[in-house]
Amino acid sequence: MNSKAVFYHAGCSVCVSAEQKLLNIINPEINLEIVHLGERKEEIAEAEKIGVKSVPALVMDNTVLHINFGASLNEVKKS
Amino acid sequence: MNSKAVFYHAGCSVCVSAEQKLLNIINPEINLEIVHLGERKEEIAEAEKIGVKSVPALVMDNTVLHINFGASLNEVKKS
Repeated sequence: MNSKAVFYHAGCSVCVSAEQKLLNIINPEINLEIVHLGERKEEIAEAEKIGVKSVPALVMDNTVLHINFGASLNEVKKS
Repeated sequence: MNSKAVFYHAGCSVCVSAEQKLLNIINPEINLEIVHLGERKEEIAEAEKIGVKSVPALVMDNTVLHINFGASLNEVKKS
């Protein structure tokens, strides 16, 4: 298995527990990249291009899974 | 590892691809139960009690992760 996934978040406290649980069940063979958009704002444009509308979001191949609703990317830009 | 997770869905076609991708990255050691609420309406009350508001949703311990927004449980009840 050589799958890659990217988990985008912005450190929102309400989501930390949920995020941790999700990360706990992901196959350890998956190449998982964690991107904190609040700290890496230069990555926001790329995330938007992929189709990320809100965080937390899990991206695999070209599929974006938006998880719950934390903060819109516009809110992250303003923070 | 003896974690258990439940994936609730209602067979909504738009979500099938996203769901499959999510299932592909879950650790195979997780005891994952798949519940199709459209076919098992008797499970809806239990899902609501846990906190499921929409499908697809992934439940781990007492945490509900709502993924994207497919169909509200009220819509599944009417279908």
